[in-house]
Amino acid sequence: MIRPAFATDRDAIWKVIKPVFREGTTYAVDRKISRQQAMEYWLESSRECYVAEAGGNVVGTYYLRTNHAGGGSHVCNCGYIVSAAARGKGLASQMCKHSLSEARALGYRAMQFNFVVETNTGAIAIWERHGFEVIGRSPKAFDHPDRGLVDALLMHREL
Amino acid sequence: MIRPAFATDRDAIWKVIKPVFREGTTYAVDRKISRQQAMEYWLESSRECYVAEAGGNVVGTYYLRTNHAGGGSHVCNCGYIVSAAARGKGLASQMCKHSLSEARALGYRAMQFNFVVETNTGAIAIWERHGFEVIGRSPKAFDHPDRGLVDALLMHREL
Repeated sequence: MIRPAFATDRDAIWKVIKPVFREGTTYAVDRKISRQQAMEYWLESSRECYVAEAGGNVVGTYYLRTNHAGGGSHVCNCGYIVSAAARGKGLASQMCKHSLSEARALGYRAMQFNFVVETNTGAIAIWERHGFEVIGRSPKAFDHPDRGLVDALLMHREL
Repeated sequence: MIRPAFATDRDAIWKVIKPVFREGTTYAVDRKISRQQAMEYWLESSRECYVAEAGGNVVGTYYLRTNHAGGGSHVCNCGYIVSAAARGKGLASQMCKHSLSEARALGYRAMQFNFVVETNTGAIAIWERHGFEVIGRSPKAFDHPDRGLVDALLMHREL
């Protein structure tokens, strides 16, 4: 079940996103980010935030926000994180599908991911299955903890 | 003369950037942005902000900031605005050159422009002369007041 996040979900969201930020292999976020900063980044800076529940637990979350202001405000941006325990069950794909539907309902005309780390091949494959195309590549834009400098992709689809 | 902006430059900076935001043809910024929001966007969100002076007046300004946090923090981003009266004299080019030097001094490894409106051909030509390459294109990403939906370019150069 995917539903809008409530204020009472903050602990659960932090549990899901904290390990991913600490690992530092997929998001361009300070690995030492505080809980408060992470909440600002994931929740307060977003137009909408959703959680995915399974068995009464929050096992995934995604945010949806306007990617650029003014003349760019018809394009949205999303970020998705699945808890380690819930991976490999298609949840990222379900959240992506959900977000595309929500974005259309909110009136956006396109969705763009600004910074997809090229080593995150599982995610890239999912976004491509959902109609996203690589429209740009920032060379050596991400300093991967294990791989060193790798590229970041810009991915996009119309809605 | 290009120098770091002081708090006392806020009025002068607003005078330079306000008409460009109100016109809405080059920056993905709300055309009705308030002075306070504009100062947050241009100054407070930036690592550094500079002004260009001529004859004792501020005739241009640019900001320099880290483009992405965490593993992306070795890449910076800049935005430049020249006052209407001072255009056509090479000031954007001078500010770009200055920013490349400052960015190197601050330890950045690359500079990226995330949203160059494709109709802003004068600016694109200047960035290309300064070694920037187009590394991505967001289709129909910008709703131009006169031209309708146009593309936005991602431009990049190593430092």
